[in-house]
Amino acid sequence: MNETMKAAIFVKPGEMAVREVPKAHLERDTDALVRVVRACVCGSDLWYFRGLSPHPENSQIGHESIGVVEQVGDAVTTVAPGDFVVLPFPYSCGKCPVCEAGFESVCPHGGYFGASQAEYVRVPEADGTCVKVPGSPEDYDDGTLASLLTIADVMSTGYHAAVSAEVRPGDTAVVMGDGAVGLCGVLSARMLGAKRIIAMSRHEDRAALAREFGATDVVAERDQAAVDKVLSMTGGYGADAVLECVGSKQSFDTAVGLARRGAVIGRVGLPHDVEISAEGTFYGNIGIKGGPAPVRHYDLQSGLLDAVVNHEIDPGRVFTGVYDLDHIQEAYEAMDRREVIKSLIRF
Amino acid sequence: MNETMKAAIFVKPGEMAVREVPKAHLERDTDALVRVVRACVCGSDLWYFRGLSPHPENSQIGHESIGVVEQVGDAVTTVAPGDFVVLPFPYSCGKCPVCEAGFESVCPHGGYFGASQAEYVRVPEADGTCVKVPGSPEDYDDGTLASLLTIADVMSTGYHAAVSAEVRPGDTAVVMGDGAVGLCGVLSARMLGAKRIIAMSRHEDRAALAREFGATDVVAERDQAAVDKVLSMTGGYGADAVLECVGSKQSFDTAVGLARRGAVIGRVGLPHDVEISAEGTFYGNIGIKGGPAPVRHYDLQSGLLDAVVNHEIDPGRVFTGVYDLDHIQEAYEAMDRREVIKSLIRF
Repeated sequence: MNETMKAAIFVKPGEMAVREVPKAHLERDTDALVRVVRACVCGSDLWYFRGLSPHPENSQIGHESIGVVEQVGDAVTTVAPGDFVVLPFPYSCGKCPVCEAGFESVCPHGGYFGASQAEYVRVPEADGTCVKVPGSPEDYDDGTLASLLTIADVMSTGYHAAVSAEVRPGDTAVVMGDGAVGLCGVLSARMLGAKRIIAMSRHEDRAALAREFGATDVVAERDQAAVDKVLSMTGGYGADAVLECVGSKQSFDTAVGLARRGAVIGRVGLPHDVEISAEGTFYGNIGIKGGPAPVRHYDLQSGLLDAVVNHEIDPGRVFTGVYDLDHIQEAYEAMDRREVIKSLIRF
Repeated sequence: MNETMKAAIFVKPGEMAVREVPKAHLERDTDALVRVVRACVCGSDLWYFRGLSPHPENSQIGHESIGVVEQVGDAVTTVAPGDFVVLPFPYSCGKCPVCEAGFESVCPHGGYFGASQAEYVRVPEADGTCVKVPGSPEDYDDGTLASLLTIADVMSTGYHAAVSAEVRPGDTAVVMGDGAVGLCGVLSARMLGAKRIIAMSRHEDRAALAREFGATDVVAERDQAAVDKVLSMTGGYGADAVLECVGSKQSFDTAVGLARRGAVIGRVGLPHDVEISAEGTFYGNIGIKGGPAPVRHYDLQSGLLDAVVNHEIDPGRVFTGVYDLDHIQEAYEAMDRREVIKSLIRF
């Protein structure tokens, strides 16, 4: 095959490019090939762009996309060419005990996409991975397509934070992190019935969107000042549920400090050098749950796909910058400089 | 008041005594005074006896008891002299947000008993603490009294491990620790519907009781060998739920190793120098929940009291040694030498 496609290339920290590369193609009979309609830049991609986490130079990147199935392997039975699909950032077999327990994101037979900022993407384990969307991309407006893209990662990840934190109707929930995931966490806490939602934010654009997504309060303080503020807002008892959408030690320690005894911290921020003191959490009965979000489970079993298609939620509003693939450098830079909350790539 | 009572005294590591001390008495109008009918020695008391954790010398000790209310303060409304009560090892106000959330054991207005191996015990926050038992001690046989005593701590703690580990019907559950709490954890996993219960034990008497309590398998291996064994028993996927009833770093690391991705470790063993790697648990979506058991919640809201009174469970079988207070040294020594699983003190 000598066909090529355009793809975003991580050249080195701080430098992205667009190059012609060999076109993605079926490699196994369980694969599908998808033509990408929308992709985006993730906060975790910025770790590479900023040189804080290692990434191979001159290689493809990206793990969030929606698109149309172009071709499927012989063993694929549930999707066919022409189907419109959301591709969760993890791929999964869909049938092992881990998947059956609702944790497709950590399926031992699966893995993570890593080349989705491109015209085509190979989907391993297509039957256990693809989330079929009714109709075709042409049936949806830009806003709905953007929201569909969020249920490939950030909206499902925010939802995982809320589910892991065991948000219940009437709860006071605190959301740590005002990136796209944190904002989706606010929306998710509202969906699960939280009565009071305290968003931690010190950026006016993000705080404004948090309020539109359901935040009742915005706290700009950090560290002990944030803990003191939340304790004073909760009669000294702390929050019933904490959504930890950052992943730093600073954020985690703050989460522990402002959690009500017996609360669970739902953590979805990729941890960076975080050690959890067993003693520090044990004597307050503080739980810790979370990890990579089981996107497919939430999209299909918890109704996120339906909620987007039926316009009950509009998480796509986290995309405040829209680019074409040729402007991938600008898409990264705008997020890096916090000029946009999240960058969408149109194809 | 010049009245005295007999009480167990922790003289120093390795040495217990019985002495006449000032009789416990009401100090606040929310207190009750209880005449102890049964008390016992806890695995955590052995940490002091062995000199591994500090405890004031020549002081009273003990936190598990059942008895009859002798006197109540003016503000107490829910118990009266003559009532037969279980005294959960934590006392609690019973009405703050932490108690209302079902975490009485970590009520910020509460604390822990520390002088229950005695003829009388003062009960702070009596209304929020006492678990009333129908009838009087004379209405129950020794076996049932022993079981009632377990719902002051070990049975409720084993139950907390199972609830925290989110044991569901059909699950494969692993119980780490074959002390009284671990054995009660086996019984609790069975109550919550676990289909397969793997007890970690290398002591024949404990393994035998574990089997009677519902264990389907007993694993004697430790560390990586235990992990390998459980993985081989579960098709390589690990256990759906892990009850960590030890508290050591070794046990916790083993628990992480044998947990199915997405599983929750219910931890109730007092942690000793355990640091939890956030990375090590995040990428497997491994949850950690637990802490001091909300005894009163489980006794009253989850039906442990009814289950004992109705003879549906017999957790009192963990008491394989029975002593009177004058033989408190023997009661501790027998547990220390693992000659008995748990020592009961009759009054």
